[in-house]
Amino acid sequence: MNKTVENTDPLSSLVYDLRSDLDATSNTILEQANSTLAPRIGDVSAHLFKAGGKRIRPILTLAAATALGYRGELHVQAAAAVEFIHMATLLHDDVIDESDQRRKRPTANLLWDNRSSILVGDFLLARALQLLVELGSGKVLEALSAAAVSIAEGEILQLSTARSLQVDETTYRKIIEGKTSALFAAAAESGGAVGGADSEQLSALREFGHALGISFQIVDDVLDYGGDSVSLGKNVGDDFRDCKVTLPVIKAVSMADEAESRFWRRVIEIGEQRLGDLEHAQELLLKHGSIESAKQEAVRWSTIAQASLEKLPDHPIRGKLADLSRFVTERAS
Amino acid sequence: MNKTVENTDPLSSLVYDLRSDLDATSNTILEQANSTLAPRIGDVSAHLFKAGGKRIRPILTLAAATALGYRGELHVQAAAAVEFIHMATLLHDDVIDESDQRRKRPTANLLWDNRSSILVGDFLLARALQLLVELGSGKVLEALSAAAVSIAEGEILQLSTARSLQVDETTYRKIIEGKTSALFAAAAESGGAVGGADSEQLSALREFGHALGISFQIVDDVLDYGGDSVSLGKNVGDDFRDCKVTLPVIKAVSMADEAESRFWRRVIEIGEQRLGDLEHAQELLLKHGSIESAKQEAVRWSTIAQASLEKLPDHPIRGKLADLSRFVTERAS
Repeated sequence: MNKTVENTDPLSSLVYDLRSDLDATSNTILEQANSTLAPRIGDVSAHLFKAGGKRIRPILTLAAATALGYRGELHVQAAAAVEFIHMATLLHDDVIDESDQRRKRPTANLLWDNRSSILVGDFLLARALQLLVELGSGKVLEALSAAAVSIAEGEILQLSTARSLQVDETTYRKIIEGKTSALFAAAAESGGAVGGADSEQLSALREFGHALGISFQIVDDVLDYGGDSVSLGKNVGDDFRDCKVTLPVIKAVSMADEAESRFWRRVIEIGEQRLGDLEHAQELLLKHGSIESAKQEAVRWSTIAQASLEKLPDHPIRGKLADLSRFVTERAS
Repeated sequence: MNKTVENTDPLSSLVYDLRSDLDATSNTILEQANSTLAPRIGDVSAHLFKAGGKRIRPILTLAAATALGYRGELHVQAAAAVEFIHMATLLHDDVIDESDQRRKRPTANLLWDNRSSILVGDFLLARALQLLVELGSGKVLEALSAAAVSIAEGEILQLSTARSLQVDETTYRKIIEGKTSALFAAAAESGGAVGGADSEQLSALREFGHALGISFQIVDDVLDYGGDSVSLGKNVGDDFRDCKVTLPVIKAVSMADEAESRFWRRVIEIGEQRLGDLEHAQELLLKHGSIESAKQEAVRWSTIAQASLEKLPDHPIRGKLADLSRFVTERAS
């Protein structure tokens, strides 16, 4: 390989370092997300997987094991299972949000139908479990089955508080801890468990993933009000159009005057949106410093993530994980 | 208890014998299908669970353990996990089939929404896994995670061959082996594993559940064309209206003359149904002996189920399991 890795971002640098493990993970995913009985499973899964994505969750698993000096192959299976759980939630999310695009490609529910997306999601979740049972680590099974429970809890909390301007920062945090952080934490912990981490190291990895996940989700929610939609792979304004109450909105609503409150009630609670409303929402977020304040919150969690890495042994990959958590917040700048 | 159990059917008799374990299973289900974070999970789950049902899958788990002389408590946890997997599929099935009634009560997707049914289904599947991880039996985990994979495969095969009159008896059997038999087999095997079965007994229990599941599903499909809808809890003609190609239809189609073939193509493949079509379909099934022939197939599998029980130690519950497999086919008479 002559490809230079200088001046690349920390995620690309990790991808480069872990490239052979990542290739093996992709192969496991494409091989296992398949069924001779029902070929549609392989078609839907490959469509979703090949659309790309940052693969940040399996990277966490592979990196955690590698940072502990692990030299076996089992972390690949754990990483594939982690990505399966994530893929299952994407398929179900796209049905729930009635999305027609993901990463600039038509969603599976559009190409096939909602039924296929629901059932292939179920298949992937079950297959993840099966891979983990085969892997045979009680700690990994415990971490990832608990994460799958938390994801559903977070999503249901989000659903049952949808369009409600009563959602405050505490509820928002519970939602994102469930829907995002739980799997980040379990992904890192699972890699550690496979890599032979002791219990202090496992907690550190768990805390790292948890804090990184919160930071990552806040940045995602900030970018939805003005990031670069090409690099993000999602469209600016998606959350707004779905009437989702995310951190920037919560902060702006808490500082709204009467006219602004009426605006937020109309566009979020009633869901009656007109041309120019997204732009007006963006103005309000800027006016009250909500974007800036949300970014600071993301940076604070990123700092917690970096600090928790200090309990791991010194290793080049450990440094790159710290760089990654800084990089995640820089996306929003 | 003064309640007499004479002259009751074998299922009621098993329910009576296992009543304290079944009560404990129900309590575990209602306790675990819950989340302080997202109360909707408990609401949706309780609605579904309290609607009733035969509880045949958890009964298989409890009965298998009991037949082996097991006296602990862990079979209750396995039985609850088995029912969770089943409940998850019911929630997702009702979304997929756009059903508005289950057991004469409005479905969860109607009372709440499709989103809640999808996510609570995901929660239950994940919680099942978590209960099984806590239970700590590798064999139970292996059997039930494989069953969850098979259920999804069977459902997707059914979906991708929907409305196709090309579906033959072989494909039909693959579908029902996935969507029904797999969990029956794993439910019985799991009870055996908890109860300390040796490998020959485990295979016997697995074979028993597998054969019982096929028999059960064929009878279900026969009843859809003329059973007593009150005792079954489903409406006659549901499969017909959903254009499902089940065993009675496959048999009638294989014997259809030209006019009949045109009829089946219109009502199943094109899905264009008129008043009186269900009655005409029922006439064709009777004319070609398709109902009778499907029933015989169910009896054949019931006999296989009974025979596999002979490898288990002599125990009153073993006899009642044999009675149960006979009873399942009598439902269709």
